[in-house]
Amino acid sequence: MRVRIFVTPRQGILDPQGRAVETALGNLGFSGVSDLHVGRYIILTLEAPSKAAAEETVRQMCEQLLANPVIEDYRFEVEPG
Amino acid sequence: MRVRIFVTPRQGILDPQGRAVETALGNLGFSGVSDLHVGRYIILTLEAPSKAAAEETVRQMCEQLLANPVIEDYRFEVEPG
Repeated sequence: MRVRIFVTPRQGILDPQGRAVETALGNLGFSGVSDLHVGRYIILTLEAPSKAAAEETVRQMCEQLLANPVIEDYRFEVEPG
Repeated sequence: MRVRIFVTPRQGILDPQGRAVETALGNLGFSGVSDLHVGRYIILTLEAPSKAAAEETVRQMCEQLLANPVIEDYRFEVEPG
């Protein structure tokens, strides 16, 4: 299965990296940018007997290692094949 | 416009962060994981007169700041509204 995981700072949590990138874009002359957040994008291949099994495994990976549930949200897509 | 940008290490470029995460998942007991890569996921709101104008602006943002074209690939989605 091909898995794509999106990890983003939780709503309302301070996001200094997002602020820094937004400021840098403004300094480069890009105007009209707002609400910018920087997260992680993780892609992987997972051997699993079913899509449901893969989804449960990925959920555990996110909770245990890939995301910090205190300050980050995650979502993922599992694509058979 | 709502913009989602995905930045990933280029195919064939060494990805030490991806290797580290893959190893860590193995150490936690997750088996069957391969071809793992860690990239960045950037979301932002952009004021633009049209979707085409927004796409051109985002392309420039990626080339100038958000991605390193020498070692990273990027793709993005622009959603009106």
